[in-house]
Amino acid sequence: MEKVTGGVTAAKGFTAGGVHCGIRKSRSKRDLALIFSEVPAEAAAVYTTNLVKGAPLLVTKAHLADGKAQACVVNSGNANTCNANGTLIAEKTCALVGAALGIPAEDVVVASTGVIGQPMTMEPFERGVPAVARDLSKDGSDRAAEAIMTTDTVKKEVAVSFTLGGKTVTLGGIAKGSGMIHPNMATMLVFLTTDCAISAPMLQKALSTDVQSSFNMVSVDGDTSTNDMVVILANGLAGNEPITEEGEAFSLFMQALNSVTVALCKALAADGEGATKFLECAVTGARSLADAKKAAKAVICSSLVKAAMFGSDANWGRVLCAIGYSGAETDVTKIDVAFRSAKGSITVCEMGASVDFSEETAKEILSEKEITIAVTMHDGDASSVAWGSDLTYDYVRINGDYRT
Amino acid sequence: MEKVTGGVTAAKGFTAGGVHCGIRKSRSKRDLALIFSEVPAEAAAVYTTNLVKGAPLLVTKAHLADGKAQACVVNSGNANTCNANGTLIAEKTCALVGAALGIPAEDVVVASTGVIGQPMTMEPFERGVPAVARDLSKDGSDRAAEAIMTTDTVKKEVAVSFTLGGKTVTLGGIAKGSGMIHPNMATMLVFLTTDCAISAPMLQKALSTDVQSSFNMVSVDGDTSTNDMVVILANGLAGNEPITEEGEAFSLFMQALNSVTVALCKALAADGEGATKFLECAVTGARSLADAKKAAKAVICSSLVKAAMFGSDANWGRVLCAIGYSGAETDVTKIDVAFRSAKGSITVCEMGASVDFSEETAKEILSEKEITIAVTMHDGDASSVAWGSDLTYDYVRINGDYRT
Repeated sequence: MEKVTGGVTAAKGFTAGGVHCGIRKSRSKRDLALIFSEVPAEAAAVYTTNLVKGAPLLVTKAHLADGKAQACVVNSGNANTCNANGTLIAEKTCALVGAALGIPAEDVVVASTGVIGQPMTMEPFERGVPAVARDLSKDGSDRAAEAIMTTDTVKKEVAVSFTLGGKTVTLGGIAKGSGMIHPNMATMLVFLTTDCAISAPMLQKALSTDVQSSFNMVSVDGDTSTNDMVVILANGLAGNEPITEEGEAFSLFMQALNSVTVALCKALAADGEGATKFLECAVTGARSLADAKKAAKAVICSSLVKAAMFGSDANWGRVLCAIGYSGAETDVTKIDVAFRSAKGSITVCEMGASVDFSEETAKEILSEKEITIAVTMHDGDASSVAWGSDLTYDYVRINGDYRT
Repeated sequence: MEKVTGGVTAAKGFTAGGVHCGIRKSRSKRDLALIFSEVPAEAAAVYTTNLVKGAPLLVTKAHLADGKAQACVVNSGNANTCNANGTLIAEKTCALVGAALGIPAEDVVVASTGVIGQPMTMEPFERGVPAVARDLSKDGSDRAAEAIMTTDTVKKEVAVSFTLGGKTVTLGGIAKGSGMIHPNMATMLVFLTTDCAISAPMLQKALSTDVQSSFNMVSVDGDTSTNDMVVILANGLAGNEPITEEGEAFSLFMQALNSVTVALCKALAADGEGATKFLECAVTGARSLADAKKAAKAVICSSLVKAAMFGSDANWGRVLCAIGYSGAETDVTKIDVAFRSAKGSITVCEMGASVDFSEETAKEILSEKEITIAVTMHDGDASSVAWGSDLTYDYVRINGDYRT
């Protein structure tokens, strides 16, 4: 498996584009993205578990009932959520895309991200959809990735290639994240494309399994969004023997999928709102996978751990505290904690108690941009990893006046 | 029922004191508190649900097994948690208090608050316990309240008096809070005293019931502490007919208890780490009490809602989003949201959708120091209130270098 460029258009037969259509005030910021497969594709998706769901999710869910799609249209700047006319707008947008591309409206996936409960009109879409359809090109992943950004500061694009029965298969994607990131059985906005030939049920199985250890293990602020969605389109143009059941080919596909989703997770976490540091919590030796996940997620979600990491403060007591309330079943008197970064590794807690360590060395290790909090439970064989970011002044600044 | 002064020494027969014993470096900050009842008292307590528990909690739990206590000793500056010698230190401290006051060590409640996993020695207690015993006086509530503060900026003391069978009964308390505040079946450090005659089982029943709607509905940062504890001592000196079963007297006692605990909750929330605003989320019209609580707590805990309130931004979509992931069962298309303060009230969402409102008026209302987020679910008769604070630059600053 190797990393390739091209993001969401790396796979055969996919093009993308991104334009400014007027939902955002700044004319220099693209706000409408389109992803297109030249042939109909198998499709699968997972959605937020929030009871409040964006109108686009409901329309997308209906459109994906047959496991097929050929295009994804996404706007930023307005979540189209909690609007009385939301469903109508999402449906009309799909119709506009269908007309522009010559495909059924039912084969269009629609998504929105931005402020919740902000009134929305069709006008920007009427202008923007034809424009973004004209903008579609093989090098358009970049523009699409930019158009779905909100408070994101960097574009998130990843792709890999691998060989399946002698055929080169490519899988790539784009994502937006930043704030309101605490996916639960679903995630932020992620669009994945592959030219792999795989049936819709197996595609759904692959995606649903993957998110458990990828997007569901990311948290920026503990708030599960109303508009989370991960969509994957597989158009089969790689020409491999179609994957219709579990086996070697499916495993290989799952590996490729996981390498792309984990890379996107890390990119999302590193670009968390206001983040200065990327945090990873790696739990090993847990009694069960569920316990490992609970512990890793609790540490990554703790405001106090996040603020300590911002301050490069080796306050490991907060790590133990978070594990203690995580709901993980474990013997807390067996836990070891170490901090790791490019500057080295330092053990700060053994058997649930303080050990002598150099505060100076710890500070140096924690001053790096990428920190791993390594938790060893000595209580079993299960392990899990969660990703997040530090809690900073800028997170507060950004979210103190997001709408203004 | 009327508010009275005196805090934890307002009730007959209770004295308190607070001194600097050297756990904290700053000599001007008291760090050791003592509360004493001149006669043995019935006692009850609730504790943190965190698996990681401070050593003092384990010792206190053992000492309260017989439902009796006569003194509480509390230090700030070190949580005495995750220390190998923690239990020994907590036990020795009780023995010192017992010797100084001429009571059994088993009748002493011990508590600690501060950094987790910081080595601790007996030395400050050997010096401090005799000093704080000499400091005990009827006007010592103030000094004890100060000695248990960590990042708290104001002392929390409340007391009320009421009449029971012709006798004046007084109930008061002190609390410390500020950070790592997300109690669950227990709470931060709170010490309550009353001269009411009430049996230990009824006292425990009253306390356990009360915390469900008082301390368990406060959150500053979603982190459940390892050292949370609420203790109540009842020495019977009011001379009322002892309360030994449910009935009118017990109800009256419960009312008094709730008025003290809710006042302490509000004081804790308003003094949340870095807080500039006190937030209250009042949910009405919920299907069940559990649903009302889940919704109120989720809104109060949401980093995004908290940051919006800091910025006086009427971003009600975040309120709906939080209710949506709270786990409360409800029809989100029926929810109304309003913001209230001393400046007035403004409805910002009706039937789960945006309504036209004046951003200017909303800003004015949200610029106040005390904000109520009023959620009406139109889905039943249950209601609940939760308390918290805004998320500010100072929360990040304080927790970025708490240990240093």
